[in-house]
Amino acid sequence: MRTSIATVCLSGTLEDKLRACAAAGFDGVEIFEQDLVVSPSSPEEIRALASSLGLTLDLYQPFRDFEGVSEDLLEQNLRRAEAKFRLMQRLGIDTMLVCSNVATATIDDDAVAASQLRSMGTLAARYGIRLAYEALAWGRYVSDFEHAWRIVELADHPNVGTCLDSFHILSRRWDPAAIEKMPAEKIFFVQLADAPELSMDVLSWSRHYRVFPGEGAFDLVTFMGHLVRSGYNGPVSLEIFNDVFRQAAEERTAVDAMRSLIRLAERTSLHLAEEGNGKGRMELATLPGVGEPLGFSFAEVKAGDPVQVRNLLHQLGFTCQGSHRTKAVELWTQNGVRMIINGQQATGLEPGISAIGLDVPDAAAAASRALQLKATPVSRRSQANEEVLQVVAAPDGTEIILCQATEGEPAWSAEFGTGSPLPAPGPVTAIDHVNLSQPWQHFDEAVLFYDSTLGLSTRPSVEVPSPMGLVRSQVMRSSDGAVRIALNIAPPVFDDAGDGSGYPQHVAFACTDLISVARTAAARGLEFLPVPGNYYEDLDARFGLDPEFLSTLRELNLLYDRDGDGEFLHFYTSTVGNVFFEVLERRPFYEGYGAPNAPVRLASQFLTSGTARS
Amino acid sequence: MRTSIATVCLSGTLEDKLRACAAAGFDGVEIFEQDLVVSPSSPEEIRALASSLGLTLDLYQPFRDFEGVSEDLLEQNLRRAEAKFRLMQRLGIDTMLVCSNVATATIDDDAVAASQLRSMGTLAARYGIRLAYEALAWGRYVSDFEHAWRIVELADHPNVGTCLDSFHILSRRWDPAAIEKMPAEKIFFVQLADAPELSMDVLSWSRHYRVFPGEGAFDLVTFMGHLVRSGYNGPVSLEIFNDVFRQAAEERTAVDAMRSLIRLAERTSLHLAEEGNGKGRMELATLPGVGEPLGFSFAEVKAGDPVQVRNLLHQLGFTCQGSHRTKAVELWTQNGVRMIINGQQATGLEPGISAIGLDVPDAAAAASRALQLKATPVSRRSQANEEVLQVVAAPDGTEIILCQATEGEPAWSAEFGTGSPLPAPGPVTAIDHVNLSQPWQHFDEAVLFYDSTLGLSTRPSVEVPSPMGLVRSQVMRSSDGAVRIALNIAPPVFDDAGDGSGYPQHVAFACTDLISVARTAAARGLEFLPVPGNYYEDLDARFGLDPEFLSTLRELNLLYDRDGDGEFLHFYTSTVGNVFFEVLERRPFYEGYGAPNAPVRLASQFLTSGTARS
Repeated sequence: MRTSIATVCLSGTLEDKLRACAAAGFDGVEIFEQDLVVSPSSPEEIRALASSLGLTLDLYQPFRDFEGVSEDLLEQNLRRAEAKFRLMQRLGIDTMLVCSNVATATIDDDAVAASQLRSMGTLAARYGIRLAYEALAWGRYVSDFEHAWRIVELADHPNVGTCLDSFHILSRRWDPAAIEKMPAEKIFFVQLADAPELSMDVLSWSRHYRVFPGEGAFDLVTFMGHLVRSGYNGPVSLEIFNDVFRQAAEERTAVDAMRSLIRLAERTSLHLAEEGNGKGRMELATLPGVGEPLGFSFAEVKAGDPVQVRNLLHQLGFTCQGSHRTKAVELWTQNGVRMIINGQQATGLEPGISAIGLDVPDAAAAASRALQLKATPVSRRSQANEEVLQVVAAPDGTEIILCQATEGEPAWSAEFGTGSPLPAPGPVTAIDHVNLSQPWQHFDEAVLFYDSTLGLSTRPSVEVPSPMGLVRSQVMRSSDGAVRIALNIAPPVFDDAGDGSGYPQHVAFACTDLISVARTAAARGLEFLPVPGNYYEDLDARFGLDPEFLSTLRELNLLYDRDGDGEFLHFYTSTVGNVFFEVLERRPFYEGYGAPNAPVRLASQFLTSGTARS
Repeated sequence: MRTSIATVCLSGTLEDKLRACAAAGFDGVEIFEQDLVVSPSSPEEIRALASSLGLTLDLYQPFRDFEGVSEDLLEQNLRRAEAKFRLMQRLGIDTMLVCSNVATATIDDDAVAASQLRSMGTLAARYGIRLAYEALAWGRYVSDFEHAWRIVELADHPNVGTCLDSFHILSRRWDPAAIEKMPAEKIFFVQLADAPELSMDVLSWSRHYRVFPGEGAFDLVTFMGHLVRSGYNGPVSLEIFNDVFRQAAEERTAVDAMRSLIRLAERTSLHLAEEGNGKGRMELATLPGVGEPLGFSFAEVKAGDPVQVRNLLHQLGFTCQGSHRTKAVELWTQNGVRMIINGQQATGLEPGISAIGLDVPDAAAAASRALQLKATPVSRRSQANEEVLQVVAAPDGTEIILCQATEGEPAWSAEFGTGSPLPAPGPVTAIDHVNLSQPWQHFDEAVLFYDSTLGLSTRPSVEVPSPMGLVRSQVMRSSDGAVRIALNIAPPVFDDAGDGSGYPQHVAFACTDLISVARTAAARGLEFLPVPGNYYEDLDARFGLDPEFLSTLRELNLLYDRDGDGEFLHFYTSTVGNVFFEVLERRPFYEGYGAPNAPVRLASQFLTSGTARS
């Protein structure tokens, strides 16, 4: 599959964009006219730069408002087109995108549109240029891709074909199956975009909210299946208008884009294999198939001064199993649940979550898959005789360590203390989930990363009010729930660095007896996140709880929720640096995260931490 | 008119919110339940705080999902309601908002809903509490305010009335005229919200995009007219769910809110007077009626080192008319157009626009009006014998100086140089517009400020792509176009301070012969903002310009646009500090601002300035 991307997807100058596309591994790009118009580089310079970067220039776009017009306007439009054909020759681009007329069409007649496109095709042929006619979803007379195709058929000119854009087709809920009926050689170009389900006018939806394939709600796998079966073998190009991508650093947006295409190619390939249908000519990348992660192997907190983190873990019932034999790193455990405190940091560094270890069926395959999906490899310093770990960085910088699942203790645990320490017992049974704050401009990227590299899938997201604005929370989990990662985007205005670092993150431990964990922790002096009295009155109003139970909740600063599946009890510790802990009990099939209690936590953290404006 | 506001409109803790509401001058507040639930303050403490701040607590809200349910659920709901009635007694609140059932209603029968509300009313009466039943626009069976009113009539209980919310009524395009048919004493509460025209699902629209009255597209003046004529005389309360307001500093959001109500009261009063209809009992504030500003008196640039600004003005044909007799301030003029260079700054201060002088028919009245609309007064240091200026700060900090319009030179110009300097001649005829960057979180506030205090009205906004993201541009102008202020919000990610200061601002001068101004400026060494060659090729493709004219444009870095009304020529200077200048020529009735050229400017500035990532 030849990969391409429209320059309008990225921020920066045209040169910045080309370099970012090449670095991310794209085969080619579409030149978006505006990007060229504002560039001080000549067409020849852009052509030379692309060539030196190994990028083909696949499409010039858009040419607007051509067909269905009066004779006078047609003449002007042909003159306008010819100027662009000359420009395209200088760029070395042989295909132009012609969008269905939005603004100036006055004649609603396919024969007229076809005849005018034929004239344009005749002119284009003199310059060796092909026209890819596309139905915009909001075109005045032509808004359906099959209608555009009928006009192309009527035009009946070798230089006039069609362009298919998944957004314009799927946003209007046209059935993409008709793609298979088109002769592949008349599909001159294909653009892909995904989008979240939003009920808004299609133009605003298109101009601001498109996302890369896999980041939205469109069924692009089925779309691609039709395309492959049609026999199309040209570029598959991303054309994403997105307010956030326009602002974000172009290098990482380009990587996100490339990842989305690789993942889509894999999913399409699996889909076609499943259907057993004859494939087309397009070669689709495949990736090492790896099973879902089986659970958390550990979570790591780094800290310049580990004493506060040690205290919290001790109060929650964890025991230090020993220090690493060569590094200032400690292993703490409880009932087989592992936490690492990494003290190899500058003294002033605030505690924070630095890494998550995941048990996977095949660590080498999982790492290979992640790297093929453009994840950034991380080299962890290791010494002779130490276990070599497979590590990649998540978009927010958290290190994801892919650990070979084993029976019993992992080999690397022998590096801590003398011999192989036995895990300490206790009521904590697992890391239930890890909650990571995301820079708002990289949220979609993060979702795609966890989906594509680890096979975690998204749950419906929720919005939680805090004193600082709405926080959006997106849980990603493995199908059995053994691995759950909650991604939070917090309002940018309170996050000076804009990188999510203004918000604390947390590790949540599951246990079988929350009240006992809380009592032990209280006896050991744990500073609980305080819960206001008003909360308990509201809880009672909503659930009519047993007074003794309610009084226990209140005494221990415990939070409570209930739904059709069961009950949920949990508490939070105070925050140290950028990290805090949660302990929770699911009774027995409650699958949520206590969302109704999240505003209480956020308000209490706002009051007790330095995050608040003061 | 009694003013009130729901605490959910603002950021911060409940205490922060109450203090901000009191400071902004509200009479009362609605307590939004969630704000109380997450607060560590007891109901009694909140009641005492409100009382000490002089705020009444007007409403407790929301109570959800009550009516249209099975007998079992009704019993649970009554128990839940009673807990809240007790809480309201502790708060000293006598009115509860009961929203039409969204989630749990199973019985679509007005008689059942009415009977259940009657039971609730009977219970509420024991606590001295009134229930204000409101139709949510997305209620399961009740989504129309007239339907809610019919159920209230059926319930026929003194403690059951209705609540009217402009959003729920106008978003569904119900006709608010029916309000006049309701007995005023059964309208227990009124909530106001405005919203921009968005075609999206009404729930998302309501939860994220409400704005204060006058900041959106709803006709709230007509709505208020019906309300006043109904005889309603209770609180008029703002209930605005807005993602940005939730993040912004609560003190200024509260002022923005109060300004919106004062302005709405004035407009309602004018509307009723115009109709000559009998008014109701509600007293509506009036404000000094002031005419529109007649033009720009001057613009002021402050600079630690004024030399670069002096150079630019000189190159554009301005002459220094003298220095202020007591301050390091210079007056530069051309053909009666005045620019002030304020050099009374710390040496390091980058040049930037600091003030705009506007000619108004009655400066004292205009200032009084602005202050009554909660504008922040600014005291400019002045000395004996100097003109006393009326100055207020716009939301972005720019000082707006309200100057008494006079024939000839203003009195204060005599403070410059010896005697009254004669303005230098030249082709510049006016300040055409001033372009100010706005912090993104204060954009709606800025629009309302210029509308309410100065009577400028909004033009359709445009979005302009830049290498750093989309820039939204909103022009506000007087009806004859003599005063035009363009407000720009730029993408936050490139503006580290988040206050708009990362983006340069500009003053645009109108002239009668742009090419001659440009030639003079070029001869004097002006550094023009460079315009790429690709731009001129595109211009030619679009407009088919005369080759000689095109070559002049290209030679002088001039930009061009054309529409049905005429032609537009303009150029930009390079940026010094945070300011640059534009000179433009309108031939003759072109009313725009060269929007198609804005991306060229932004890209060129991105390349030539330090704003870009590097």
